[in-house]
Amino acid sequence: MRVFGIDPGSDRTGFGCVETDGTRHRLVRCGAITAPPHAPFPEKLVGIYRELRACLADCRPGIVVIESVFYAANARSALKLGHARGVAMLAAAEADLPIVEYTPAEIKRAIVGYGRAEKPQVQQMIKLLLGLSAVPTPHDAADALAAAICHIHARHPGGPLPPATISRAATSWRRYRPSVQATRAARRP
Amino acid sequence: MRVFGIDPGSDRTGFGCVETDGTRHRLVRCGAITAPPHAPFPEKLVGIYRELRACLADCRPGIVVIESVFYAANARSALKLGHARGVAMLAAAEADLPIVEYTPAEIKRAIVGYGRAEKPQVQQMIKLLLGLSAVPTPHDAADALAAAICHIHARHPGGPLPPATISRAATSWRRYRPSVQATRAARRP
Repeated sequence: MRVFGIDPGSDRTGFGCVETDGTRHRLVRCGAITAPPHAPFPEKLVGIYRELRACLADCRPGIVVIESVFYAANARSALKLGHARGVAMLAAAEADLPIVEYTPAEIKRAIVGYGRAEKPQVQQMIKLLLGLSAVPTPHDAADALAAAICHIHARHPGGPLPPATISRAATSWRRYRPSVQATRAARRP
Repeated sequence: MRVFGIDPGSDRTGFGCVETDGTRHRLVRCGAITAPPHAPFPEKLVGIYRELRACLADCRPGIVVIESVFYAANARSALKLGHARGVAMLAAAEADLPIVEYTPAEIKRAIVGYGRAEKPQVQQMIKLLLGLSAVPTPHDAADALAAAICHIHARHPGGPLPPATISRAATSWRRYRPSVQATRAARRP
């Protein structure tokens, strides 16, 4: 099974794909999508969407994991993060993949065993669990891998997370059809 | 020229397309994309994206106008709005259309002549300017039309908005190529 983690951000979006047989995990691919610093905002969104779609088509995971966010420094930064996160979610949904969300504390607990672990501890565990020679860089890529491994650990019987956490955000949008009310004007004389 | 306005929201996204010869404006189409109340969040985003893309392909506007947001009630609602707004922006950008943003005050000033006008005043002016028999419903559709007409008025010489406002957010993402750093793991023995 392959699990694809995403750590979204408007300036840099980390991604990481992990393959597992249930016991041993292997890194398939990880990296970050970085926007040119002065690119207009819509360009950044297009970049995130297109690159993620390409990565998902390439890695062919069975599920996508995104860190859930409950707060941000302020409404403005939350709004900006929301744009990037929405586009990342759309890329996964358009690829017909289920999406699972975990809180930052759940991810840390699943990787290190402690919900308030520091970033370097999480990164060292990622390196260890995937048998890498170094910590994955940039840190956004490591965060995306942590989300992916969190899901693998959570699925495991006796894993650190209750099963409820897993199914909570699972989606089935294939049935979805939003209602559109539309008015088409008669041409005026 | 046709101008397409969008009023994004995760539960309901208004849209409205206006055609103008510079003096007289005509409603092409307006409406709202409404998600089923209990649809999973990614489904809602897919609905907004797909319906907006279909509307844009149908209406064939020259430009897309989105109300800019600077604040929200709190970080959580800003994050949610950001998801919908990011997906709406992506739909316009993927259709190769320039995107222009105006603040709520700029839109009110351009329609009613007063930046703190009440919603019903704006809606009545929309009805008048487009020669409609009634105020467009739902109000999200009217808000989207207001954004579109704001841009038409702003472009007009001697219009209520300084020209700087118009070009500010214009984009040219065709040249954009984000840099992707990716690590592909060697298969472990």
